[in-house]
Amino acid sequence: MGENNFFTLIHKDASSNARCGRLLTARGAIDTPCFMPVGTQGTVKTLSPQELKEAGAQIVLSNTYHLFLRPGLEIIEKAGGLHTFMSWDKPILTDSGGYQVFSLALLRKISDEGVHFQSHIDGMRHFFTPQDIVRIQQVLGSDIIMPLDECVHYPCGRDQAEVAMERTVSWAKKSRITHSAIPQQGTRPQYLFGIVQGATYEDLRIRCCEELIETGFDGYCIGGLSVGEPKNLMYNMAGICAGALPQGKPRYAMGVGLPDDIIEAVTLGVDMFDCVAPTRYGRNGTAFTHTGEITVRNAPYAKDYGPLDDMCACYTCKNFSRAYLRHLCNAKEMLGGRLVSLHNVYFYLELMRAIRQAVAEGTFLAFKKTFLGNYHEKA
Amino acid sequence: MGENNFFTLIHKDASSNARCGRLLTARGAIDTPCFMPVGTQGTVKTLSPQELKEAGAQIVLSNTYHLFLRPGLEIIEKAGGLHTFMSWDKPILTDSGGYQVFSLALLRKISDEGVHFQSHIDGMRHFFTPQDIVRIQQVLGSDIIMPLDECVHYPCGRDQAEVAMERTVSWAKKSRITHSAIPQQGTRPQYLFGIVQGATYEDLRIRCCEELIETGFDGYCIGGLSVGEPKNLMYNMAGICAGALPQGKPRYAMGVGLPDDIIEAVTLGVDMFDCVAPTRYGRNGTAFTHTGEITVRNAPYAKDYGPLDDMCACYTCKNFSRAYLRHLCNAKEMLGGRLVSLHNVYFYLELMRAIRQAVAEGTFLAFKKTFLGNYHEKA
Repeated sequence: MGENNFFTLIHKDASSNARCGRLLTARGAIDTPCFMPVGTQGTVKTLSPQELKEAGAQIVLSNTYHLFLRPGLEIIEKAGGLHTFMSWDKPILTDSGGYQVFSLALLRKISDEGVHFQSHIDGMRHFFTPQDIVRIQQVLGSDIIMPLDECVHYPCGRDQAEVAMERTVSWAKKSRITHSAIPQQGTRPQYLFGIVQGATYEDLRIRCCEELIETGFDGYCIGGLSVGEPKNLMYNMAGICAGALPQGKPRYAMGVGLPDDIIEAVTLGVDMFDCVAPTRYGRNGTAFTHTGEITVRNAPYAKDYGPLDDMCACYTCKNFSRAYLRHLCNAKEMLGGRLVSLHNVYFYLELMRAIRQAVAEGTFLAFKKTFLGNYHEKA
Repeated sequence: MGENNFFTLIHKDASSNARCGRLLTARGAIDTPCFMPVGTQGTVKTLSPQELKEAGAQIVLSNTYHLFLRPGLEIIEKAGGLHTFMSWDKPILTDSGGYQVFSLALLRKISDEGVHFQSHIDGMRHFFTPQDIVRIQQVLGSDIIMPLDECVHYPCGRDQAEVAMERTVSWAKKSRITHSAIPQQGTRPQYLFGIVQGATYEDLRIRCCEELIETGFDGYCIGGLSVGEPKNLMYNMAGICAGALPQGKPRYAMGVGLPDDIIEAVTLGVDMFDCVAPTRYGRNGTAFTHTGEITVRNAPYAKDYGPLDDMCACYTCKNFSRAYLRHLCNAKEMLGGRLVSLHNVYFYLELMRAIRQAVAEGTFLAFKKTFLGNYHEKA
C-alpha cells in the first residue's frame, strides 16, 4: 500500500489549524491544500486536459456512479482505465457515487447490504454493494478511492442521521476489507479514504471519526457538507471533524465549496476540496474574481473592456474582455462558457497556490483577512 | 489601396485550372487555395484563437449582419475593431450579410436603394444600403470586405435571377465608390471584392463577371453556390465564373463547401473557400477523415479506441479515441463537439496545405484522384 509515504505534512500554521502537505501517488504529487476540478463524466466540463494542466491542476475528480452508467465499465476497462480513456495522466480521485445514488437515481432502496436503484438515464435497475464500489474504482484505475456512503439531506432528524452514519461506517469497514484484498504488487497503489457522516450532530460526527480511525484509512473525507445547511453549521462540522481526525492523514471536505468556504475550511485544518462551482458558474457566465463574483453576461459589462479579473494571468484574462465574454454568453456561443470556466478553474487553483504559500510563510491569517476583505467588496 | 500587391499568382497547374498564390494583407499573408474557418458571431464556434492558429488558420471569416445586430457596431468600435474584440490578430474577411438578410431576417423588403428587414433576434427594423454595408465593415476593421448582394434560392426563375444579378452589380458599383472614398492613409488597407450572382444561368453569370471586372475589384466571389443545387450544376457554375474572371485576382467560392467540393472547385481555378461544415458537423459529432465522414456518436464507435483519423496529427487525434469522443457526444459534454470541431478545422486546413503542395509540385490531379478515392471509400 505504501500508505506511510502517501501523505507528508510539511507545515502547520502557528495561528490556526491550517497546514500544507503533499500527497504522493504513482501518477504524481499533489500539493495541499488542493482543489480538485470536477470531471463527473470523465471530462471537466468544456475544458481539455491540456488546459487543466496549464492552469496547474494536479488532480481531477470523477464519478463512479456516472461512469458506471455511461459509458459503462467495460468500455473504460478496455481503454486501459479512466486515465487513458480521458487522456489524463495525473492523479484521479473517484467519488463513490453514494451522493449521486441519493440525489439523482430513481426508486432507490437501501439496506445494510447495499443500494438498489434505477439509472436516471435509462431507468435500468442496478444494485451496488460497498464491495462493488471498491471493485469498480479498481477497474477505473483511480488513484484515490471513495467507499460507498449514505448521504442524508439537510435538515435531517437525529435518528435518521445515526442510522446513515452507522451504515456508512459498516460499509467503510467492508470496503476496507475488499480494498485490502486487491493485489497491489506490480500495480499502481490505490488509496482508500473513509467518509465521515453524521449530519449536523457533533457527537455522531465524532463517533464516526473514531470508528473510521479504528479501521484505518489512507485519508478521511468530511461528507454531507454543502448540502443546504447554513455556512456556520458547515464550518462548525468541518472544524469538529478536522479536530477529531489524525494529523498525519489528509482531510477532504467533499463538495466544498465557494472560495470563502475553502479558506474557512483550510483554517480549520482541511487539506482537499472539490466543487462544481468553477465550471457550473462558468457555463452560466459567472466569474470568480479577487473582488467577488461577477455575472459577465449582465448589461453593465456590455462596454467593459477590462479582463474578468485584472489580477489574473489566465488565457481568458490575458486575451479577452468582459465585453467580448458577455457577447459570447448572450449569443449562446460555447466559447463563452468555456473561457469563463477556464478562468474560474485557474482562479481556484491560483487561490490554492496562494493559500499554500501563505501557510508556508506563516502569513495565512493575514492572507485570509486580505482575501476575504477584497472578495466581499462589491466587484 | 496597394491592390497590385494584394494577390500574387505563384503557380499554375499544367493539367487543370488549379493554381496557388498568396494574398498579402497588413495583418499577414494567406496562402491560396485557402480555407477560412467561419466565425459568424465573432468566434469560430467552440474554438479559441490560439487553437485556430495552432491548427494553421491564416484568416477567419465573420459576418456583418450578425455582428451589426449583436453585439452591435458601437461595442466593437469602442473595443478598437473586430480583431481586438475577438483577440484575433490575423486577417479577417467579413461577409456582407446579404445572404443572412435573405435567409434569416424577417419581413425583408428589397429595393434598388437597399433592403428593409427585421432582426431575427428581436424583431427590430433596420435598413441596409450597399453604402452602409461598406461603412460597417470599415468600422469592424475587416481586411477583406464584401459588398451587399442579392442572393436567390435554388431553383430560381430566369427573370428573378436576372433582376437580382443586375441589382447585385449596381450595388457593387455603389460599394466601390463608397470604398474608394475611404481614406486609406495611415490605416490598414481594406480590400473590396465583387460578388458574381446569376443563379444557374451561364449567360447571366458571364455578364455579371464582365460588369464587375469593368468596375474593378480586388478579388471576385462566386456567390449563390451551395444553396441546394445539384453538385454538377455547382461545379459547372464555378468553372464558368472562374473562366470569365481575371487570372491576376483571387476567386472565392462563398460557402463552398465539403472536402470534395473544394477539390473540384480548386481544379476549376478557385482560390478561396469558407464553410460552416467543419464546426457544424463537429458539434453534431461528425468528423471528416481521409476515408470520409464518420458520425462518432454512433454505436459502432463505442469500443473503437483508434483516433478519428489515423493520418491526422491534430490535438484531438493525438490524444483521444473515437470511444471517448462518442462518450462525450452521448453524454452531451461540450468537450465532445469542441474536440471534433477542432479536428475538422485541422482536417480542412491540412487538406488545403496538401492541395497547395500538390499544385506547387505539379502533382495536383494525382493528388486529387488519390484523395477522392480514399474519401469516397467507406470509413
